[in-house]
Amino acid sequence: MEINNDTLSNASSGEHSKHQNFKVPGLVSGFSKLNRNQRIDLLNTYLDEDAIDLLNAFLLPDEKVQQVISELSENFLSNYYLPFGVVPNVLINGQMYMVPMVIEESSVVAAASRAAGFWAKNGGFSVRVIDNLKKGQVHFTWSGSERFLKSVFLHIKEQILADTAPVTANMELRGGGIVDVELLSLSHKLENYYQLDVTFKTADAMGANFINTCLETMAVTLSNFMSQYSDKGQLEIIMSILSNYTPQCLVECTVTCPVEKLEAMSGAYLPQEFARRFALAIKMAQVDVSRAVTHNKGIYNGIDGVVLATGNDWRAIEAAGHAFAARKGTYSALSDVEIVDGYFKYTISLPLAVGTVGGLTKNHPIAAFALKMLRNPSANSLMQITAAMGMANNFSAVASLVTSGIQKGHMKMHLVNMLNQLGASDLQKEAARKFFANKTVSFAMVSDFFKKCN
Amino acid sequence: MEINNDTLSNASSGEHSKHQNFKVPGLVSGFSKLNRNQRIDLLNTYLDEDAIDLLNAFLLPDEKVQQVISELSENFLSNYYLPFGVVPNVLINGQMYMVPMVIEESSVVAAASRAAGFWAKNGGFSVRVIDNLKKGQVHFTWSGSERFLKSVFLHIKEQILADTAPVTANMELRGGGIVDVELLSLSHKLENYYQLDVTFKTADAMGANFINTCLETMAVTLSNFMSQYSDKGQLEIIMSILSNYTPQCLVECTVTCPVEKLEAMSGAYLPQEFARRFALAIKMAQVDVSRAVTHNKGIYNGIDGVVLATGNDWRAIEAAGHAFAARKGTYSALSDVEIVDGYFKYTISLPLAVGTVGGLTKNHPIAAFALKMLRNPSANSLMQITAAMGMANNFSAVASLVTSGIQKGHMKMHLVNMLNQLGASDLQKEAARKFFANKTVSFAMVSDFFKKCN
Repeated sequence: MEINNDTLSNASSGEHSKHQNFKVPGLVSGFSKLNRNQRIDLLNTYLDEDAIDLLNAFLLPDEKVQQVISELSENFLSNYYLPFGVVPNVLINGQMYMVPMVIEESSVVAAASRAAGFWAKNGGFSVRVIDNLKKGQVHFTWSGSERFLKSVFLHIKEQILADTAPVTANMELRGGGIVDVELLSLSHKLENYYQLDVTFKTADAMGANFINTCLETMAVTLSNFMSQYSDKGQLEIIMSILSNYTPQCLVECTVTCPVEKLEAMSGAYLPQEFARRFALAIKMAQVDVSRAVTHNKGIYNGIDGVVLATGNDWRAIEAAGHAFAARKGTYSALSDVEIVDGYFKYTISLPLAVGTVGGLTKNHPIAAFALKMLRNPSANSLMQITAAMGMANNFSAVASLVTSGIQKGHMKMHLVNMLNQLGASDLQKEAARKFFANKTVSFAMVSDFFKKCN
Repeated sequence: MEINNDTLSNASSGEHSKHQNFKVPGLVSGFSKLNRNQRIDLLNTYLDEDAIDLLNAFLLPDEKVQQVISELSENFLSNYYLPFGVVPNVLINGQMYMVPMVIEESSVVAAASRAAGFWAKNGGFSVRVIDNLKKGQVHFTWSGSERFLKSVFLHIKEQILADTAPVTANMELRGGGIVDVELLSLSHKLENYYQLDVTFKTADAMGANFINTCLETMAVTLSNFMSQYSDKGQLEIIMSILSNYTPQCLVECTVTCPVEKLEAMSGAYLPQEFARRFALAIKMAQVDVSRAVTHNKGIYNGIDGVVLATGNDWRAIEAAGHAFAARKGTYSALSDVEIVDGYFKYTISLPLAVGTVGGLTKNHPIAAFALKMLRNPSANSLMQITAAMGMANNFSAVASLVTSGIQKGHMKMHLVNMLNQLGASDLQKEAARKFFANKTVSFAMVSDFFKKCN
C-alpha cells in the first residue's frame, strides 16, 4: 500500500478543505488488496473520529453469514440495512401470498397492503406472463456488402450453434437455451453496424452469465468464420453483451370489479365519481411526461421492493421498464384503465426479467427466506407476484391522489421518521401522533412541537 | 386479528398447493396493527420451520438504532443486508473523495475503482451542476374557455403565493422556495386538461414533502378562486403531486485526456485503437435501444450505489434518468464521446435529484456515515459525486467490453459467490481460484469442480 499525498494538487493532499473542517484523502495504490481493517485504518486517516466502532457495530455475529455478504461486492466496510417488511393478503390467480418487500420509503408497504387487502376481497390480481425471453447481441462492423454477409449467414449460424453446444447443454436440461440467432443490419443508423441478435430462454435464472458466455463464444465463431473472406471486407467485433431491454419478457396484471365495489377506496367520493377521477388520472399519466414518470415511479416502488427482497437486480428491471414506457416515441404510463358496463378494469404491462436461481437468490440468507415466503416460485411466478405488487402500489397511490391527496397518509408515516431524527422518546412520539392527527405535518412544525415538549 | 380461512377458495385456504408442499396463508384483517412477534407468529402458521430464529438473528443489538430501521417502513420483520463498500481515488473538480457504495452486484465497486484510479491520474472528473430545480403539478380539468382561465391566472398566482407563504417561509430561509407557477394547457392531448406547473428550489433537501404540501395548498386556492366563476365553467382538481421528472435538475460529468494516456485501459489494443473502439461502442448505444438500455443500466449501477448509500430514493433517480434518455423520441445513451486533436473526451449528462438533508440521510446511521465520508456535501456536491460514479462505472464497463470482454473480470468476482453458495471452505475457494484463473467459469463447471474436491 502506498499513499501518494504528493502526487496531487494541494486541494486533495490531506489538507483541510476550504468550506468545512474535513480532511481530504490522498491517492492510494493497491486499495483492493487491503483487508477490511486496513481499509478502515485508511479511512481513519481522514475522518475525525474512529470509524471502526461504528462500522463494526453493524457486522453480523455469524461469521459465515457475514462472509457471504462481505464477498458479494468489493472493498467491503460494513453492512447497509434496509427494513425487510411484508405485505399480507396478496391474492394472485387464486393463490394467496404474503409478499416480502425491502424498501426505505415510508408508506410503500402500507400502500401496497391497502390495495392488496382490497383486491383480495374483489377477485385478486389476474396476472399472466406473456413471454419470458431474454436477449443479447454481438455488436460488430462489416465493411463489405450487406448482401454477401446475409448470403453466408446460415453457415455462420450453423457453426455458432455447434460451437455454443457445450455452453448450452446444462441450460437445455433446465428447459432453457438459445431460441434464435438473427442477423440485423443497423447500417442505416451507423455505418457498417450489424448485430447478431440472439434470443435466449434461461429457465428460472436471470441468466446474465449464461447469455454473456454464449455471446462471447459466438463472437469468436463469427470472427473466425469471416476471416476466410478477408477479400470481401473486414469484420470487427466491437462487443458482446446481453441486453437489459427485455420487451419479450413481459407480464400483464389486471384487476377488475363492479364500480360500486370501489366504495372502500373512494373516500369522500361516490364510487362512480372515484372511478371517473381514477380513470382521468391514468389518462393524464398517458399524455403528460411529467406525470408519467411519477406514475411509473410509483409502480416501481412496489416492484423494486420485491426485486430487492428476492435478491434480483433492480437497475436491470428499472432500465427495461422505463425504456419500454418510451417505446412508442413518447414516455408514457405503463398502465391503462377501462370503465365498461359498470365494471372498473385496470391493467399494467411491463417487462420483468427476474430470476429465482443463481445470483443472490439463494446465497443471501434473507433473499432465500423471501423466496421461501413465496413458496420457492419459478421465475414466471415471481414475475407475476412482482407485477402484482407494482400494481398494488400504483393503485393505492393513484387512489390516494384522487381522493384525500398523498400527504395525509404519507406524513403520518413520515412523522415517525422525523421524530426519530429528533431523538423523541416513545412517550413524546405518542403525544406527537395525537397532536398531528388532523394537522398538516412539516419538519418545522414537528421540530417546534418537540422543542415545546422538552 | 382475524384469520378468515373460510372466506377464500380452497387453493388459498391453508391447503397445500399442488406442485409443492407449501402451506398457503389465509386472508388476515388488521395485520398492520399486529406487533412484530405477532406478525412472525402468523408467518409461522404457514412456513414449515420456525422463522423467528432466522429473522431475529439479523436484528441489531442496539435497540435504539434497530427501532430507527424498523420504523422506516411498515410491517417490519427483520433487516435486509447489502454490502457497504468504498471506491477510493475519486478525484472530482480537484477534490479527492473515497465514495461509499451500496450494491449487491459483484464487480460494480471494482469497475468503478478501476476507472476512478485511472482518471485520478489523468485530471479527474470535471462535473458541473447545470441546474437544480424541482417540479410539481396541480392536475385539473376546466370545462370553460382557455382564454378566460388565462385571463384570471395572474390573480390566481398572486393568491397562491400569498396562501403558500407560511409553508415556504422555512424553506426560503435555507435558500429554497417557489421559483415560478405557470398555467399549462394540455387540452390538445386530453379534453379540458390543464396544469399548474410549479418550479421549486429545495436547497439541500429532496423536498418531496415540501413540494407536495405546497401543491396541495395551491389546489385549494385554485379551486376556491374559480368557484366564483361557476357560470364560466367547472374546475375540478384531479391530483396535486411532485414530478419525479427533473430535466432541470441536471448534472454533466466530463473526463478528458490525450489518447495515448488511455494505454492503461486499452488492454491488448493500442490506445488509438481502444479510443476508436470505445467511441464506436458509444455511437452504437446512441442508435440502438437494446444497447442503450444496457449502457445506461451500467451508468445507474454506479449511481444507485451512491444513491442507496446516502439514503436517497433510487426509484426517483432511475425514473427521471431513463425518461430523460427518451426525451428526443427514441431511447438513447446518456453519454457522448469525442476524439478531437488527439484528445479523448467523454461526457455524461443526466438529471439527479438527490438530497443531503431530510429523509433517511441523517436518520439512517450508515447513510449518515456515508455522507460524512463525503465531507457532508451539499445537494449540488452530492449530484457531482454521484454523476462521477455513474461515469466511472460506465467507462470501466465499456472499456472492458471493447477489450477483453465483460465475462473475464466478472466471472472471477462471481466465482466467489458461487463457491459460497456451494458452501466451500477457504481452502477450497483458494483451490478453485487457481483452477479457474484462466478458464471460462460456469456454475456447472464450478459445481463439478467442487464435487471432485470434496
